[in-house]
Amino acid sequence: MITPYTLPGFMELMPVDQVKFDYLKNTIEKTYLKYGFLPLDTPVIEGADILLAKAGGETEKQIYRFNKGDSDLCLRFDLTVPLAKFIAMNQGQLSFPFRRYQIGKVYRGERAQKGRYREFYQCDIDVIGDEDLPIIYDVEMPCIIKDIFDTLGLDFEIRINNRKVLNGLFTSLGVKNTQDVMRIIDKYDKIGKDAVADELVKLGLQGSDVVKLMEFVAIEGSSQDKIDKARAFDIQNEEYLKGLDELEQVIQHVKTLGAEDTIVIDFKIARGLDYYTGTVYETFIKGHENVGSVCSGGRYDNLASHYTNKKFPGVGISIGLTRLYYVLNELDLMKQVPNPIKVLVLPMDNAQIGYALKVAKAVRDLGVNCDTYFADKKFKNKLNYANKQGVPFVAIVGENEEKDNAVTIKNMFEHTQGTVKLDSLKNILG
Amino acid sequence: MITPYTLPGFMELMPVDQVKFDYLKNTIEKTYLKYGFLPLDTPVIEGADILLAKAGGETEKQIYRFNKGDSDLCLRFDLTVPLAKFIAMNQGQLSFPFRRYQIGKVYRGERAQKGRYREFYQCDIDVIGDEDLPIIYDVEMPCIIKDIFDTLGLDFEIRINNRKVLNGLFTSLGVKNTQDVMRIIDKYDKIGKDAVADELVKLGLQGSDVVKLMEFVAIEGSSQDKIDKARAFDIQNEEYLKGLDELEQVIQHVKTLGAEDTIVIDFKIARGLDYYTGTVYETFIKGHENVGSVCSGGRYDNLASHYTNKKFPGVGISIGLTRLYYVLNELDLMKQVPNPIKVLVLPMDNAQIGYALKVAKAVRDLGVNCDTYFADKKFKNKLNYANKQGVPFVAIVGENEEKDNAVTIKNMFEHTQGTVKLDSLKNILG
Repeated sequence: MITPYTLPGFMELMPVDQVKFDYLKNTIEKTYLKYGFLPLDTPVIEGADILLAKAGGETEKQIYRFNKGDSDLCLRFDLTVPLAKFIAMNQGQLSFPFRRYQIGKVYRGERAQKGRYREFYQCDIDVIGDEDLPIIYDVEMPCIIKDIFDTLGLDFEIRINNRKVLNGLFTSLGVKNTQDVMRIIDKYDKIGKDAVADELVKLGLQGSDVVKLMEFVAIEGSSQDKIDKARAFDIQNEEYLKGLDELEQVIQHVKTLGAEDTIVIDFKIARGLDYYTGTVYETFIKGHENVGSVCSGGRYDNLASHYTNKKFPGVGISIGLTRLYYVLNELDLMKQVPNPIKVLVLPMDNAQIGYALKVAKAVRDLGVNCDTYFADKKFKNKLNYANKQGVPFVAIVGENEEKDNAVTIKNMFEHTQGTVKLDSLKNILG
Repeated sequence: MITPYTLPGFMELMPVDQVKFDYLKNTIEKTYLKYGFLPLDTPVIEGADILLAKAGGETEKQIYRFNKGDSDLCLRFDLTVPLAKFIAMNQGQLSFPFRRYQIGKVYRGERAQKGRYREFYQCDIDVIGDEDLPIIYDVEMPCIIKDIFDTLGLDFEIRINNRKVLNGLFTSLGVKNTQDVMRIIDKYDKIGKDAVADELVKLGLQGSDVVKLMEFVAIEGSSQDKIDKARAFDIQNEEYLKGLDELEQVIQHVKTLGAEDTIVIDFKIARGLDYYTGTVYETFIKGHENVGSVCSGGRYDNLASHYTNKKFPGVGISIGLTRLYYVLNELDLMKQVPNPIKVLVLPMDNAQIGYALKVAKAVRDLGVNCDTYFADKKFKNKLNYANKQGVPFVAIVGENEEKDNAVTIKNMFEHTQGTVKLDSLKNILG
């Protein structure tokens, strides 16, 4: 006999909680479909050469890698590398701009700690262009994020920036170690202005540059104000100005769509990955900014450079669903999700089991999700099961009901009950 | 640069095909919910000691097993062992009879061959009792199979048997190597009566026993006829008679539910696994019985004996979704699945891009799935994309449409078109 256990860092929910998780997942999937994305489902296992073509550093250490026969295999650690592979492989068959969503599990052998998972769902969308992709596609991404988080009933803010703005600014200031500088600026909201300034000086930046950077990231006002102020910032760098132009286009369309309250410019958003080259997005739950971004993404110039010479620019976002579920639960922000099972059929006695099956069939034929309870227990135990399952309606089936071709429906929330003929069931449940 | 590839034995579909795959998956999931099953989602990775507690032989050789740090890990090869673990772990918190469905990927490193996959979806339901579970639960399983395959528009037959009948018969005849005998009888439809008889003789069975077995499996008639004839078969064995009683109960309820045309007794169904102890199910597509059962399952006495002393009997079925998809495609039996994307918005010119975004928002606000095309191409290319995507409606947005706050809707299937105001869109698309 082995004591059963689930590995640490692996989420395994009770069905009643899995229902809530699935509600999040279904909301995301439905919204992705609403915006014209079609599904893709790549393997969890890929050849190590495929997955490691680009990886390195921290990611590579976390990868689950193993041999099976002669094959050197890995579990995917994100859904972007498999997408790059897929597009490079199938470029001749696809229509561009190519939109796909993928919702699936990915694996990272991180050090186990509360709220960090080694197996977690990512929910990604990307639009991929063939050689180029107009900036307008960058507008739909935050609209999709907004749609999802509105549906989830959350109070949130989507912050956008453009990597060209930061890159251009750094170039103009003569800053060399841009990755490090971005990493530090990214911590602005966490550690504060002074600590960021200190770290930048420690990194070797000149005092005057640090002051300029601090002035820049502190620019206030509406999104349009921020762009205007940044333009007036006297940075004569082409990339910087191009980034501001792109940001302005995105913001103007966001305004047309009436979304400017939730989608705002934040010049501090850098996104660690060197991958991004234009618009970048982060999403924060208001009042809970400390949990970090719950949906991020951005624009990149070249998706599949490790597998093809052809250039595939794109823009995408990703929701870390497992972490989002964890966070919403911890913060008690999970919307009340209705029980997908609406009715439970309870025979009073074993003699009514056959009739109970018929009643369940009648309920299900109405398209209503219906459980049945046939264990040979006292009626009290049966009702106890009903209460635990939290079904809104219990259909009680006794001798009289069977005789009358009827059923007694108990409304478990309103504590009312009434008897109806089977053929009138739809008036109550329909 | 690495030449991109997907591992052999791993299904990776184009989005247009993934839509069909997802239609199958969603049909199965919806039906499982309709019958009162709630979702469970266990990890793909488990400790090797957990997954191998019971495995052995062929299965163990196929398992993906590897180390990460100090941990000896495996990828799950079915959804039953993780369920057993889950129930043994959480028995105190669950309500019994416990119903769950699980749809997820499992892994078996089989020899690669056409139509066999190393990564494939299983779609399982089980009802698990605490110490006992009434036979009536065995009635719902074939009804669920019927519901799913009816929805998929297939012509099929569900064959049921009871392992007690075969076991009792073998005991009564003094047959020792029952597993081998069952394996041979299982091939009856494939290799024919004579070949089965030959193999049984080769196995060492006495001629008279072989004749008796052949007579038994050849029993003809309606399901009730078969039970009556089997009862008259002069086998005085308790298990045999109990199996017939159970079969009769299942068949009688199946009749009450009007499903006796698709659910029939077949005394040849043995199911290889020694795991099953009562009712067993197999499902065949009519005219394509040679592809094997597309949905199988049965009753078992004790689910979690490797993890707990408590007895958890249950009954369940499993659909090998990846193989089902493959088979339906090969046989050209896949139902026409409507495009989940209903509308594509096409701006005539870049000048209308902003208005096109508004139109797309109006369509999506109606809850209609909508794609947009913003690439800077000739209108011909845009229409070409529309044709390739197979959307039923194209919403064309030009200068006039923008001026009139309207949109021209082209019905791509009926080759008609008309212009409507944005606020009347729902009359066409709603």
